[in-house]
Amino acid sequence: MAAAIALSGRGRGLSTPNPNVGCLFVRDGHVVGRGWTQKGGRPHAEAQALEQAMDRAHGATAYVTLEPCFHLSPRGPRCADLMARAGVRRVVIALRDPDPRTDGQGAQWLRDHGVIVEMGLMADEAARAMSGFVLRQTLGRPHVTLKLGLSLDGRIALADGRSRWITGPDARAHAHVERARHDAILVGGGTLRADGPRLDVRLPGLEDRAPRRLLLTRGDPPAGWEKIGAPEEIAALDRVDHLLVEGGAGTAAAFLRADLVDRLLFYRAPVIIGEGLAGIGDIGLADLAAAHGRWRSCDTRMLGADRLEVYERTRSA
Amino acid sequence: MAAAIALSGRGRGLSTPNPNVGCLFVRDGHVVGRGWTQKGGRPHAEAQALEQAMDRAHGATAYVTLEPCFHLSPRGPRCADLMARAGVRRVVIALRDPDPRTDGQGAQWLRDHGVIVEMGLMADEAARAMSGFVLRQTLGRPHVTLKLGLSLDGRIALADGRSRWITGPDARAHAHVERARHDAILVGGGTLRADGPRLDVRLPGLEDRAPRRLLLTRGDPPAGWEKIGAPEEIAALDRVDHLLVEGGAGTAAAFLRADLVDRLLFYRAPVIIGEGLAGIGDIGLADLAAAHGRWRSCDTRMLGADRLEVYERTRSA
Repeated sequence: MAAAIALSGRGRGLSTPNPNVGCLFVRDGHVVGRGWTQKGGRPHAEAQALEQAMDRAHGATAYVTLEPCFHLSPRGPRCADLMARAGVRRVVIALRDPDPRTDGQGAQWLRDHGVIVEMGLMADEAARAMSGFVLRQTLGRPHVTLKLGLSLDGRIALADGRSRWITGPDARAHAHVERARHDAILVGGGTLRADGPRLDVRLPGLEDRAPRRLLLTRGDPPAGWEKIGAPEEIAALDRVDHLLVEGGAGTAAAFLRADLVDRLLFYRAPVIIGEGLAGIGDIGLADLAAAHGRWRSCDTRMLGADRLEVYERTRSA
Repeated sequence: MAAAIALSGRGRGLSTPNPNVGCLFVRDGHVVGRGWTQKGGRPHAEAQALEQAMDRAHGATAYVTLEPCFHLSPRGPRCADLMARAGVRRVVIALRDPDPRTDGQGAQWLRDHGVIVEMGLMADEAARAMSGFVLRQTLGRPHVTLKLGLSLDGRIALADGRSRWITGPDARAHAHVERARHDAILVGGGTLRADGPRLDVRLPGLEDRAPRRLLLTRGDPPAGWEKIGAPEEIAALDRVDHLLVEGGAGTAAAFLRADLVDRLLFYRAPVIIGEGLAGIGDIGLADLAAAHGRWRSCDTRMLGADRLEVYERTRSA
């Protein structure tokens, strides 16, 4: 299942409007098919893995990060039906599909056709890998990551706005991979005016993965940019399950104040700036007790001289 | 030698005016004596270890973090002479004593009396363990650690000054151990007025380890506090080899601006404060390039929910 979850990551930021599912077929101890939801949502991971496995799917065990779909669609076949017809012996599912059009019916269909079904293996990890889809289903909004490149003392620029560069090339390359894993990227008007960020993916082989560009502004957006007027408007964005907020301080604060940040992605450079621009503005914190218990460290590692710090929200969303 | 260096840590913050040396005697594969420089500087580590070893020092190997002293003192015997008389077979020394009254003469005396002497094993680690003594000898000033309890975004308090508590009990206990390892603690006038810190060591068994209290101020210090008017005045402090600067932002900035910080000790809580008091004020940074290459991460670990981040200066002091 861990391998299937890893595969699911390949569709992240590409698979909307469908969840980025990963799927693996194993027979006689060998992997006979691998799949992940493709760009635009089709083919589904299971269909792709089945196509690879061909006859070898017969009698195989499938590991899939989300319950195979049951609902009819003009865009493709029902995966639960496909798998039953292929003679799959056993299907191990991480997460039950919260979509009411499936919601247990895919698993039931498989069982009704003699397939052994197990549900719940590594469900938390799968939910994290498909967090955008899960939040879209449960809260009706995208999963939001706030990314900042910070000094040890929490600054993102000198007092005059200069910010090139605080972090090093390894951290910046990592941030570009993160961009490729998101459907859309958002900055505030101040950052656009100060930095004129391109927000593209400047990595060999990933140049075409540039996500949509959103601007948090009260005014009109420039060409190539979509506008949202307030953080809450992200719920209405079509085909955005994973949103990356890249600052500046006012935009970061606006999303935190609205309690619309699910993950913090901080690149911490080993520098001290002192007086300069803070990474995060006024979030309306009334007392320190209210600041505690909201974030849990879930990953940290060195990227060159910089430290990556990833936190996820602990409170129920 | 690693064990001798660990022993040397026990005298840190206590041994001034003498260096916090550690010493270990080994014979036939057994440790027969252990010592570290005692409170006020006497007995020396070697003398203490010899007293433990007694007759077993004959033919033993001694591991000592600093070259045994050679100079005559009314306060105690010369360690090089003591060791030669005891019939020690071999002395392994980490660091040559930069004090001109010894500076190689201790090792020579041992060699002249038939003792095998090796010098330089783990010299860097020993220098770090005795950093206050080394800086006092080379730069004529104490070793300075800047300690701050910070939020993820580099804040040390809410905008109105409230700072209790940003970090948790494990981090605060660790900070109290660090206090016990320093000869003196320094805060700025603003911190004294705002927090009225006691700067004592609130740990069972270490209550008597409260270091001297220094105040960076232009005015008169209250009772129990010594005053310094500028960071550079630390060079003149008697019997202070290890100084802990605990803030606030102006004091931290003053020491950084004067390039008088050797080690950063940051307790980073998993909280976001947003608008609040910055941990570090204006350090006079002209451009970002000048901020780079100055600090190297040398330790990090979790203390409860908080992360300890230790950096040491990379530039030559």
